[in-house]
Amino acid sequence: MGNVQARVEAALERVLPSGKIAPQRLHDAMRYAVLGGGKRIRPLLVFAAGEAAAGDPDRVDPARLEIAGCAVECVHAYSLVHDDLPCMDDDVLRRGKPTVHVEFDQATALLVGDGLQSLAFQLLAEHRLADDAAAQLEMVRILAAAAGSRGMAGGQAIDLASVGQALTLPELEHMHIHKTGALIRASVGLGARCANALAPEKLPRLDHYAKCIGLAFQVVDDALDQESSTATLGKTAGKDAANNKPTYVSLLGLPRAKALAEELRREARDAVAEMGVGANRLLELADFIVLRKF
Amino acid sequence: MGNVQARVEAALERVLPSGKIAPQRLHDAMRYAVLGGGKRIRPLLVFAAGEAAAGDPDRVDPARLEIAGCAVECVHAYSLVHDDLPCMDDDVLRRGKPTVHVEFDQATALLVGDGLQSLAFQLLAEHRLADDAAAQLEMVRILAAAAGSRGMAGGQAIDLASVGQALTLPELEHMHIHKTGALIRASVGLGARCANALAPEKLPRLDHYAKCIGLAFQVVDDALDQESSTATLGKTAGKDAANNKPTYVSLLGLPRAKALAEELRREARDAVAEMGVGANRLLELADFIVLRKF
Repeated sequence: MGNVQARVEAALERVLPSGKIAPQRLHDAMRYAVLGGGKRIRPLLVFAAGEAAAGDPDRVDPARLEIAGCAVECVHAYSLVHDDLPCMDDDVLRRGKPTVHVEFDQATALLVGDGLQSLAFQLLAEHRLADDAAAQLEMVRILAAAAGSRGMAGGQAIDLASVGQALTLPELEHMHIHKTGALIRASVGLGARCANALAPEKLPRLDHYAKCIGLAFQVVDDALDQESSTATLGKTAGKDAANNKPTYVSLLGLPRAKALAEELRREARDAVAEMGVGANRLLELADFIVLRKF
Repeated sequence: MGNVQARVEAALERVLPSGKIAPQRLHDAMRYAVLGGGKRIRPLLVFAAGEAAAGDPDRVDPARLEIAGCAVECVHAYSLVHDDLPCMDDDVLRRGKPTVHVEFDQATALLVGDGLQSLAFQLLAEHRLADDAAAQLEMVRILAAAAGSRGMAGGQAIDLASVGQALTLPELEHMHIHKTGALIRASVGLGARCANALAPEKLPRLDHYAKCIGLAFQVVDDALDQESSTATLGKTAGKDAANNKPTYVSLLGLPRAKALAEELRREARDAVAEMGVGANRLLELADFIVLRKF
């Protein structure tokens, strides 16, 4: 896993415009927003899904997976930069560093997010990532739909509207399916489409895995937010509770939230268990996401 | 021209998510940002370039041009929504109506822009717009590069950095080539690629036309900003001067700015004059952009 993270880190270094290219301050800020932090869960999912779809880690080109992983990570990073802005969550700390609008300024943070979103689609269009251009266009469609108003951006809007509201469990799930789930599903979908000669019957299993792991990820995030300190988390802890935002922990209590995460981990593993050796990394990632401590 | 504008308006109505689809407030705000205003210059350029590239208005599918036109208009509309935010230009009036963050709120305006950018790429990926998928991927690449940190978003960063600075004419041009020019060139590039059996030797002429018209557009904007009232402009007049922002008028004076616009109009027309009857709409648009009064 560390091997893939290092690959992704190097690829992000390479695809982000250099701080020497004008406009320099904007490019410095884009690099600040993306590099040197983050667990790279979504690129890890791209790699794992690509290997599972190929059936064998050696039958998928890692150069394709790197670029697809960079594209989803650019979308993820842009969403964090915009979510941290004063008019949204108003947060000052992210990945253990000052947020982009604190380190630079709000206008730059706005443009960093905008530029990172464009960069994601540029990456998907300007490198060869699939066997044919039609499959690659489908990758663009998947990422755009996942990022947009019926995906991640929509989830953020639902989240904003839910502050101070008493959500039911289905309503909370609806929010997270959009806010974090859509991009996690897209990561798996993009990775799978990087594989040569993709067998389409694998896609529903991979997608079911992605849905389970996306929800599990959020349940675990809520539990960690409750249990951890700001120092270990690298972002402001206990903020959701302080903002009266509904979470899995506030709705279910900590023990039942942990049991739900465990159930989702099992369901995710079951979805891909029969896909053979290629799915090993997906199994590992399910464990990593649910059993992580920070 | 009115015919094309009506087509584009109807297409935008259709491709924007309905206000009845959740998250409703976000979708209402996206529709508010895009519909019922704007001259649709960029979609008009998409149509005109498509007809010129096809050599004959009847040899390019208007359904393709509509979608490509909607995509560039979504990017343009998103940039206006973000530019109007308090941390950027802090404007309250746009197209004669309150800006999105005034009518809704800042967080919604942020998400409107984010969602519109995603929608643009989704449109380019989910409809058939070119003879083959590879040409269509090239359209994605063109729009992403034009929108990004080395295009429109970069131009906005250069603009921010230039407030209160004494720019030279080449520096001012450098800013506008990015801020407005990149998307205008992309509009022409996308329209051309919608044409069946595109003759690649036409592309440099069309691109030269687009470069000239992009600059002319900005020179005329500066002149109108100086000469008009807020009521006729539909946005706050005289704002650049009040903010001590450099403009073509502040650098050249009004008469020389007008002469420059006229020179660029002639150069744009010359670039496509020998392309035959298909280029008629491009010639009309050059006149419209430079000779408009509002």
